[in-house]
Amino acid sequence: MGLAMAVNLVRAGFELRGYDIAAVAREGLVGAGGVAVGSVAEAADGQSLLLVVVARAEQAESVLFGGAGAVTSGEGGAVAALAPGATVVLHSTVSPAYARDLGERLATAGHRLLDAPISGGRVGAEGGNLSIMASGSPAAFDVAARAFEVMAGRVYRLGDEPGTGSTVKMINQHLAGVHIAAAAEAMALGTRAGADPATLFEVISGSAGNSWMFSNRVPHMLERDFSPRSAVEIFVKDLGIVLETGKELRFPLPIAASAHQQYLAAAAGGHGGEDDAAVVKVYERLADIEVKG
Amino acid sequence: MGLAMAVNLVRAGFELRGYDIAAVAREGLVGAGGVAVGSVAEAADGQSLLLVVVARAEQAESVLFGGAGAVTSGEGGAVAALAPGATVVLHSTVSPAYARDLGERLATAGHRLLDAPISGGRVGAEGGNLSIMASGSPAAFDVAARAFEVMAGRVYRLGDEPGTGSTVKMINQHLAGVHIAAAAEAMALGTRAGADPATLFEVISGSAGNSWMFSNRVPHMLERDFSPRSAVEIFVKDLGIVLETGKELRFPLPIAASAHQQYLAAAAGGHGGEDDAAVVKVYERLADIEVKG
Repeated sequence: MGLAMAVNLVRAGFELRGYDIAAVAREGLVGAGGVAVGSVAEAADGQSLLLVVVARAEQAESVLFGGAGAVTSGEGGAVAALAPGATVVLHSTVSPAYARDLGERLATAGHRLLDAPISGGRVGAEGGNLSIMASGSPAAFDVAARAFEVMAGRVYRLGDEPGTGSTVKMINQHLAGVHIAAAAEAMALGTRAGADPATLFEVISGSAGNSWMFSNRVPHMLERDFSPRSAVEIFVKDLGIVLETGKELRFPLPIAASAHQQYLAAAAGGHGGEDDAAVVKVYERLADIEVKG
Repeated sequence: MGLAMAVNLVRAGFELRGYDIAAVAREGLVGAGGVAVGSVAEAADGQSLLLVVVARAEQAESVLFGGAGAVTSGEGGAVAALAPGATVVLHSTVSPAYARDLGERLATAGHRLLDAPISGGRVGAEGGNLSIMASGSPAAFDVAARAFEVMAGRVYRLGDEPGTGSTVKMINQHLAGVHIAAAAEAMALGTRAGADPATLFEVISGSAGNSWMFSNRVPHMLERDFSPRSAVEIFVKDLGIVLETGKELRFPLPIAASAHQQYLAAAAGGHGGEDDAAVVKVYERLADIEVKG
């Protein structure tokens, strides 16, 4: 997603310096007329706006504060290289607790954090049609405004403090994750009970049992196309954030917990890198059926 | 719902004889210009088409075959009174196994069954805009066609055998029940984590976490309006059918099972007769919060 967002910014006239640990992403940026550099520190050097598009908090930590990590090559982090008083936009889905803590650490270093998780996947990123669920100071929003306009179809301003953006995204992911797993469970049960999967999809997608995810992901199941638009491992992570937050708040989440177990079962079966709709394979394997139509 | 459906049929010119154990429903039918009678046997007497609109299989059993039940006054059942070769339309949400068995028993008695559960609630019934998910013989569909046209916005013809209609409805109820409970769990977690419930609703209902039920039921929570459009007890029953069917088929349903427990918890708290959105009270009571906005 980071490459698609960077390309859109370059096309819109931004003088952007991009870094990705993957050479193919750096080459993609150069191919689109952008500038790729050799490290996060070089990308951040003297800049007043830094957009971080990585999957996990540990990766964001490595990008911002250095040290060897999955997405850096081990040099110093970006924060030390930024211009004074810079704005850091974290687009990753992280726990609200991490976003708040990062906001405090960046403030101590003289910078601002915009807690700005994104939704819409690779398709949304390529089309400049992401949703951004963001919180942070008005000054930080001002700095990021022009870039957000290029990358997003909708920007939700959710308050002045880092943490709220991540809270709202977390709730979205709770529901998205439960809905995909429930779609898999229901379609598999219906198939096992003798209904035709394509007919089930047609009726349910026009009925009260429908969800955004049911409409979007069940076709992946029916077409047996599990190329990852978003992977099973993303919900292992995101429902993990939901459950970890529930644990910290002493708030029980039995439905999210049972859905999380099904993504873990899919990953256990070797499907972690496949499309999240592959969670249906957990049910299919149990009963030797196929949700196909 | 039965009254609303009967009134629409009367207004469309059907010569209908209606029975309900509740005097208020019989009076409602008479007030709309219809004919109310004193027993199910009297309603069925010599008829070639019988529509049964009760909540549960046990009630359908009592209506059709007599004996004291919650919805009859203890006389003989409707089946013995019907004209030979009549069509019985069962609009209740029952297990596919019950629908199949009933179809066989009615066939033995020389009648046809249309397994025809409905969706759309009281609002859909009043507006003549129900969805009917039906299976049964083409001859049975022919007999019911004109009534279906009056009562329903959509009729799904799902095959020639009783059981398929109930299977599709069961899958719809699996998802509907999980989605409402998940909406409650997610909204309550977000509220506990400090987000504004009304803002959460606005963002999620426009995002990938949305479901038909999320859009429809969360406003009941935010407005604290738990007058029953459809009650908690309906999902105690319908997810119960889902789980019973899973047990018979040896098909595990961890997500439906965890949602069912939350409806049981709501009923345990005295909310069984309230709107199904009252499942949120289970979470609210645990953490002393309110999803209100």
